[in-house]
Amino acid sequence: MRLAIDVMGGDQGPRAIIEGSARAVIERPDLALTLFGPRQQINAELSRLPQPLAAATSRLVVADASESVSQSATAAWAMRRGGATSMACMLRSLSSGEAVAGVSAGNTGALVALARRELGMLPGISRPAISTAIPARGGRRCYLLDLGANVDSPASRLFDFAMMGAAMAQCMDRVKRPRVALLNVGSEATKGSANVREADRLLRESAANLSFDYLGYAEGGDIFQGDLDVVVCDGFVGNVTLKASEGLTRMLVERVQMAFESRLSGRLASILARPALKRLKRELDPVRYNGASLLGLQGIVVKSHGSTQADGFYYAIQRALQEVEHDLPVRIAARWSRS
Amino acid sequence: MRLAIDVMGGDQGPRAIIEGSARAVIERPDLALTLFGPRQQINAELSRLPQPLAAATSRLVVADASESVSQSATAAWAMRRGGATSMACMLRSLSSGEAVAGVSAGNTGALVALARRELGMLPGISRPAISTAIPARGGRRCYLLDLGANVDSPASRLFDFAMMGAAMAQCMDRVKRPRVALLNVGSEATKGSANVREADRLLRESAANLSFDYLGYAEGGDIFQGDLDVVVCDGFVGNVTLKASEGLTRMLVERVQMAFESRLSGRLASILARPALKRLKRELDPVRYNGASLLGLQGIVVKSHGSTQADGFYYAIQRALQEVEHDLPVRIAARWSRS
Repeated sequence: MRLAIDVMGGDQGPRAIIEGSARAVIERPDLALTLFGPRQQINAELSRLPQPLAAATSRLVVADASESVSQSATAAWAMRRGGATSMACMLRSLSSGEAVAGVSAGNTGALVALARRELGMLPGISRPAISTAIPARGGRRCYLLDLGANVDSPASRLFDFAMMGAAMAQCMDRVKRPRVALLNVGSEATKGSANVREADRLLRESAANLSFDYLGYAEGGDIFQGDLDVVVCDGFVGNVTLKASEGLTRMLVERVQMAFESRLSGRLASILARPALKRLKRELDPVRYNGASLLGLQGIVVKSHGSTQADGFYYAIQRALQEVEHDLPVRIAARWSRS
Repeated sequence: MRLAIDVMGGDQGPRAIIEGSARAVIERPDLALTLFGPRQQINAELSRLPQPLAAATSRLVVADASESVSQSATAAWAMRRGGATSMACMLRSLSSGEAVAGVSAGNTGALVALARRELGMLPGISRPAISTAIPARGGRRCYLLDLGANVDSPASRLFDFAMMGAAMAQCMDRVKRPRVALLNVGSEATKGSANVREADRLLRESAANLSFDYLGYAEGGDIFQGDLDVVVCDGFVGNVTLKASEGLTRMLVERVQMAFESRLSGRLASILARPALKRLKRELDPVRYNGASLLGLQGIVVKSHGSTQADGFYYAIQRALQEVEHDLPVRIAARWSRS
């Protein structure tokens, strides 16, 4: 099994990405990775890998790509000028069949645009969506989409997101009939924007033919309640919600830490509080730790967080491997051919 | 000083609202409140007030209003049929000058629509906005608006929100030059919806004449960073962000509690963890504890959280009193007459 890795684009530079890649390879003997990026830089990082990670190098193949997409580049720039970047080369290795899935920590807008061009969409789906599983009450999780592949979305696209999210929950988490809701400013039928109300109408009309339960509107807080498997919104709202949640989690964990450290002696605090808080931080920062999936493409692409560490990139690779095992794009496509 | 209180509309019924009102009156000898709602029900609750709250009844005047706005009522219903509701009567007592500010825990859409009709807008401002101070890092706070007075907002309205938010931070928190940003999906100039980009252009064009610093785009996480005083967005995004933050805070506090209780003995946990967590929960649930302000009106209206307890309603009254003391509508209007 071969995955393609875009080594450029992470805020921490290629080191964290290469280290995360090496860890994934060491753990799984049937896995090989192609690393796309500037050969010299990659080789220098590979030669620095500590033991036991150094043993991974035989299954880490370098594919030279001297250019890269900067975080400030536009999708339009990537489409016109980005053909030789590590991101585009990584994606082409998926469409050519050399690799079965790709992972990048780079510029989201460019990744969406290039992936759409290089891989193509599944039949019947017009635009990709980005999704990740948000931790919810009772150890459950809720797929939120779209997280920013599109800035705004007409009703028909919100409908597609509901279908893709449901496929994701069914296929990856074995939820038989996912509970799906539309994000809105209130639970009453009369509330919300015209797009959201129209998407609600479309979903209600099709309810008898859907293989998921459409539950109507959800409010922001319902994402975390644990009784929804999928929450659908446009990319602007999803992106703001996800980033606000990340920011709030960081602030909260910091405050809890301060509150305890002011009440306990330093030593007691470090024994009692820190391990619990560290675990919590990790559970609650889904993108940094698990990456986000691009859905609707003819191929598997996982976006790792820009500021990811080796850990986070390792988990993004795991996410991609799971999607390969569950044949996610085929399962998503099956919904459209049935409907 | 007389305030007008809408006794109906809280999820907990009138009791919590009347108790919160009584507490506010007891604490402040120059304060009197008019309670709008069904006279019998209010009198029954007043007679049940425990000591020392019972002493407040001489400064709690009942104004009979037998009808009320339900949580599921639409703004359109309120405008057509809601004239005799406790909410509408409360608002009319502001426009007639009997009271200097009003507080309601009722239906937000109805409150915005009725307040706009009964009080009128300040000259130059087309629509009200709802705002509250979100707790941020380092004990700082950030006004987020709009929280749902409007579902979507053209660029000119986002511009007005920036002006109102800045006036709020300046007037209420004595921030000399508030730092104001527009919420977007990325910090680069090319990102975001057409409305947001147009609002950015308007704000940049006027930068030299503004009495605040416009800092460009903010992402969701920046709300909590502590280096912005005002973050502007449309009502859909603001509402979802606020409610998601409330839901996430509840889940996080629950998880921290569980994590500690599984590591500490029950007794130790309750001594060490619970008081800190309780304080935290309260600090981080701004609307439930402080209410949200309706801005842009010719009058002062504070919206208390629907599921508020006596505590929360008491704080919403405090918020209204502060706005009276700072003459907030006059300070907001002054910005429009200057520009």
